[in-house]
Parts: sequence; C-alpha cells; structure tokens
Amino acid sequence: MSAFDIQAYLKEHKALIDRSLDRYLKKSKQQPRTIYKAIHYGLFSGGKRLRPILTLASGELFGGQQKVLMPFACALEMIHIYSIIHDDLPALDNDDLRRGEPASHKIFGEGIALLAGDALLTEAFHLMTRPQVARALEPSLILKLIHEISHGAGVGGLVGGQAVDLEAEGREADVATVEYIHVRKTGALILTSARVGAIIGGATPKEMRRISRYAEFLGLAFQIADDIMDIAEHAGGGEVREKKKATYPAVVGLAAAKYRVQELLHQCLKEIDLFGKDADPLRGIARYVVERAV
Amino acid sequence: MSAFDIQAYLKEHKALIDRSLDRYLKKSKQQPRTIYKAIHYGLFSGGKRLRPILTLASGELFGGQQKVLMPFACALEMIHIYSIIHDDLPALDNDDLRRGEPASHKIFGEGIALLAGDALLTEAFHLMTRPQVARALEPSLILKLIHEISHGAGVGGLVGGQAVDLEAEGREADVATVEYIHVRKTGALILTSARVGAIIGGATPKEMRRISRYAEFLGLAFQIADDIMDIAEHAGGGEVREKKKATYPAVVGLAAAKYRVQELLHQCLKEIDLFGKDADPLRGIARYVVERAV
Repeated sequence: MSAFDIQAYLKEHKALIDRSLDRYLKKSKQQPRTIYKAIHYGLFSGGKRLRPILTLASGELFGGQQKVLMPFACALEMIHIYSIIHDDLPALDNDDLRRGEPASHKIFGEGIALLAGDALLTEAFHLMTRPQVARALEPSLILKLIHEISHGAGVGGLVGGQAVDLEAEGREADVATVEYIHVRKTGALILTSARVGAIIGGATPKEMRRISRYAEFLGLAFQIADDIMDIAEHAGGGEVREKKKATYPAVVGLAAAKYRVQELLHQCLKEIDLFGKDADPLRGIARYVVERAV
Repeated sequence: MSAFDIQAYLKEHKALIDRSLDRYLKKSKQQPRTIYKAIHYGLFSGGKRLRPILTLASGELFGGQQKVLMPFACALEMIHIYSIIHDDLPALDNDDLRRGEPASHKIFGEGIALLAGDALLTEAFHLMTRPQVARALEPSLILKLIHEISHGAGVGGLVGGQAVDLEAEGREADVATVEYIHVRKTGALILTSARVGAIIGGATPKEMRRISRYAEFLGLAFQIADDIMDIAEHAGGGEVREKKKATYPAVVGLAAAKYRVQELLHQCLKEIDLFGKDADPLRGIARYVVERAV
C-alpha cells in the first residue's frame, strides 16, 4: 500500500491555487467594486478546487512546472465558478444555497450574479493570454489549450450539458439521458482540466489517451457521487429540491448508483496503473471523490 | 465631396459577415438543438454588424486581408450578441423586444437565453483559436488580440459598464456617470473592434492611436445617438421603459445631446483625416451612426 497522504496533498494544492487566484485578482484595479465583491465571493466560498488540482496533478505527473500550469489551472477554476453562479440562478437550477452558504444571487441580486459569471468566464481567457504566460509556453500550444478549454466549456461540453439538463427537468429521464448530461455538464470540464495539465507536461499521445479515460471515468463517478450525497443530505432533513432533476440514483436506485460509482473508480484507477507511484496524487483524488459517497 | 457609397459598403460587408457566421456555425454538430436555435436566433435577427464591419474597415485600411480579419470580426459580433441577450434578461434590462422582435428569453425562456449567451461568449474564443486562424496569423499576435478582446469584453470594459449601469438604475445620474457607463458598456467593444482590425492590418503605433481615438469618439457618439432615437421612438407611441436608465439626453436634455453627438462626429472624423480617401469606409460608418439621430 502507498503511504501517500492525499489529505495533505489536497490541502497544500488548494492553498497554492487560492493564493494564485488571489494574486491574479489583485493585479486588476478591482473596479467597479460591487462586481469584484461578487467575483471574490464566488471564487472564495469554499470550493474544493478539484479541477485546478487535477490540472496540477496530471501536469506534474509528466514533469510540468507548477508556475506554468497555474494560470490554466486557475482559468479552469474561474470557468467552473462562473458555471455554478449561473447554474444557481432562478432561470436555471434556482438554488438558494451553495455549499451551505447563500448563492451569489441571494447576496448580490440576480443581475450582479449574472454579470459576475460573465466576468469570470471572460477573465479566464484574459488570464491565459497574459504576456507572462506566453513567455513560459509556446504561443501555438497556448492557442491549442484555449481551443480545448473553450470546447469543454462550450456547447459541446458544459453549456450543452446545462441546456439538456434544463430541458430534462420535470420529465422522466433514462440512464442514457442522465449520462449524457453528466458527461457534458460535469464531465467535460473535469476531462479538460486533466488533459490541459498533461498537454502542458508533455504527455505522449498514448499517455494522453490514458489520462483522458481516467478523467472521463472520474468525471462520471464524481457526478454520481454528488447525486448520492444529495440524497443523503435530504434524508437528513436538508431542504428538498423543488425541481425534479435527472440524477443517476433517481433512475437506477441508490444501491445500483453506489455500485456504479465503485465500478467507475475501479476503471478509472486501472487507466493510470502504468504510471506507478508517480500517479499517487491522481489515485488519491479519484478515491477521495468517490469515497465521500459510498 | 467623396462619392463613396456607404450604404452599398455596409450592405455588402454585412452579407459577408452573415455568410461567415453561418459557415462557422455549420461547422459544428449543432447539438443540442434548442440551444443552437437560440444561438441562431440571436445571431441572425437583424443586427447592423457595426462591430465586425469596423474590424474589417480598419483592417483593410492598413492592408489586412479579409479572410484573416473575419474570424476576429465574427468573434466580436458573437460577444456583442451574447451581451445583448444577457442584457435583455429580466435580471438586467428586462427588455421584451430587441429591434422590434421578441427578445431571446421571450421565445426560448430565461434559462436557454442565459445559456445561449454563455455559449456565444465561449464559442467566440473557440473560433479565434481554430488551427486555421493560427496558420494565417502569428500565434503570439493571436494571443495579444484575444487578450485585448477579453479586456474589452470583461470587467474593465463591457461587463463592468453593465454592472455600473445596473447600479445607476433608478438613481439620479450625472454626465460623468453616464459617460462612464457608455464608454464601457458600448464603447469598449467598439474600440476593441476597430483596434483589432488595425492590429491585424499592421498599423504603426501612431496609426493605432488615431484609430483608437476615432473609435472612442465613435463609440460615445453611437450610444448617445441610440439614446436620442430611443426618445424619438417613445414619443412616437412605442412602449415606455419601466426602469429609469442613465442616458445622455435624460441628463443634459435633447438639444444638448444632439449637439454633443455632432461634436463627437467632428472629433472622430478629424482623427482619420490623415488617411485620405482610404478611410472613406470609416468616415461613412461614423456619419451613418450619427446621422440616424440628428
């Protein structure tokens, strides 16, 4: 058994990412004030930083330097935060709470929350095109990374998944629809985060395929685990969602969902077997994501 | 007097841009359907294409090739359309009509309209980072252009202007606040559109300064002209805005606003004097923008 301490790893990397996000924000004039407050609130209200940690972990596996990986890791987190701010709005999921705290629109109003999301998405691209970034990485490679990130975040990924999720609301969904939504709405950005790290690290095509499959299994496991925990929360007296959402346990039942998560974890770990001890962070992340739920 | 036919120029360039936007969209799988319908509706419901035409006109002034300019021109239009889809939402301006047609959210619902805006913003960056674009233009220059565009569209420009506009709603605004909002909410993307063309065309620093000032005056003139036409429409029995907005005529009166627009047109034209006949398209655009209103 590996003695790798994933808790320490996650804590340390989250702190690094928080520090970088804070530094990137500080470089701007932070005007107008209100929207910066909303951006700050969204970015620093207790996220796990799963996506940027994945970028760092898969990048470091192939020898990528942290300071080269960091702007992309942070841009991916900004895109994730934009997506949850918009997703929580009444027009979409209408969630008043996010991680037990008031959602952005409950504090700043719907208009500023909408704009804070727009700002975070836009600033993510501003961050990745800073002159400093192009001094550390080949410009044509940066373009490739932005192309891939905007695909994962766009209609072919995140936004497309949100649209199908919205349309599935209140309808009887089947497993295929739920997986379609999960693969895009959550999976696409997780996949992209891992791939971006591996590309920067210089992974070979064969290694890219492994990391991609690892991240695909991980993304699906993560979302099903989230769905399972949502049920546990509600059973414990938490607020009940008003809208009927397409979730995995709702379609196949709780026991089958838990089984599926463990199966996905197994598949996910198998993909990175060949990387040996160096992939302990990626293994730790996968176990951490799943073991919350089962 | 120049015999330059601006009407023909605008019509021809609008058709070119429409064709390119359509071609870019067709290259995607166009799934999921609903969100593509909303994207298509937003992009093809009668915009003037002022921003992409500015990119083409200022680019061609310095010898830029249309096919090199086009992806950036179209990306700027996609960003503009995203911003008006979001701006029309109840959370912001709450406009049911856009150019006399139902706003996106009145047709597709608020959720899909929100996501269509998110998609357009994201796809704009996807478009600018296509491998074909990097074959026609130096990758480091593309990064510089994306950096500038994401600045104009972000908190320092468009989104920041929308935030201050939202906060000024219902309050007594002064000229400084109105100009602050106009310069960012409308001006920033117009400035960026002209600058992007000039950068691609290879303008010198001195020429860049001229084009930038031309576009700054133009952007402000455009927004004040829009405010004036808004008043004329309402006087003609059109619907009255429910919310009190910070507009130039509301602050200084209609006559002073008309005077200011003509003054700005004069300043705007002076900046491009030195370019002679080659700048006829830029002159025509400026006159067209202002003469609708006075």
